Amino acid sequence: MTETSKLETLINSLSIQPGIGKKSAQRIAYHLLQRNRDGAKSLASALLDAMEHIIHCQRCRNFSDNELCNICSSNKRDASILCVVESPADVKAVEDTGFGGMYFVLMGHLSPLDGIGPDELGLDKLSAILQEGKVSEVILATNSTVEGEATAHFISEMVRKQGIKISRIAHGVPVGGELEYIDSGTLSEALAGRREI
Amino acid sequence: MTETSKLETLINSLSIQPGIGKKSAQRIAYHLLQRNRDGAKSLASALLDAMEHIIHCQRCRNFSDNELCNICSSNKRDASILCVVESPADVKAVEDTGFGGMYFVLMGHLSPLDGIGPDELGLDKLSAILQEGKVSEVILATNSTVEGEATAHFISEMVRKQGIKISRIAHGVPVGGELEYIDSGTLSEALAGRREI
Repeated sequence: MTETSKLETLINSLSIQPGIGKKSAQRIAYHLLQRNRDGAKSLASALLDAMEHIIHCQRCRNFSDNELCNICSSNKRDASILCVVESPADVKAVEDTGFGGMYFVLMGHLSPLDGIGPDELGLDKLSAILQEGKVSEVILATNSTVEGEATAHFISEMVRKQGIKISRIAHGVPVGGELEYIDSGTLSEALAGRREI
Repeated sequence: MTETSKLETLINSLSIQPGIGKKSAQRIAYHLLQRNRDGAKSLASALLDAMEHIIHCQRCRNFSDNELCNICSSNKRDASILCVVESPADVKAVEDTGFGGMYFVLMGHLSPLDGIGPDELGLDKLSAILQEGKVSEVILATNSTVEGEATAHFISEMVRKQGIKISRIAHGVPVGGELEYIDSGTLSEALAGRREI
């Protein structure tokens, strides 16, 4: 036994983080013990505070400190456009583009085998928001994966019934991308989605 | 403002870990919030416990729960061989080879520009251990860097004065290594250190 049990506990605990294996956890533990004990204590309290107090916004389901998140409670946003995304990280990605509308966060995608259906994605809540009549366009910004596409398809059917305009983010060549290295599926979507200039 | 302040605090705190940038910290935060709040709370308490209670062994200076670490307090180890290493991680690496002697952990290497001299490395303590007369061989297992070599040289002078046998771990071709890819410095050390078979 080289290591103390407290150190082993710490290393094991650190490796619950995604992308952190045993070796990285060990390096992090030694680093914090040797050079940043105060930082590690702040990390501990930030973790506790976040895990105990971060809830889901009652409207858009994004993570939030309060019952309504900053976006849903803001009066500076365009409430007529609603962007549907899979996760809070996607909200951040869309926000970085300067999008000024509202969001709805599914917190996942349809996955019947894992027991994730419309209820788990809060689609009743989405439906209720649309029934308020403020939203004139729904943008489906789920991932371009099989599950993401299936989820987008399912929601589009639902929204269409409510008579609201619905759109899907474009597929195509990434900005800065070289055609030579783009897969044929993306390239054929880019061709099909061509725009007159 | 997309994110809640507690979430931002968490992401900033997570990125004090070496090797964890903003993007990874974000991914970890979302993962813990969404899938492992209990694990995150355990991590918080492991961090606090470790930072508050892990101390340095009074003898070998390795991290320890108690004043004497498990190795120094064990009577199953060979107290006649002392291995000098730079860090606790190195102790773990040497332990994995099955080494059964004792250790002395410098917690760094000589670095006059950073104000790290013999005192900071606890060399007075090492000297005191050697004066007890139990140690018959000191193995210098500092890193094979400029600083590690300088530190090894300094300690070898000190130990030699006390009339104790002193050795340095071998340089050479790593096991499984191909000569074609070995740098010439290592290869010339491997040639110089050749052994009759």
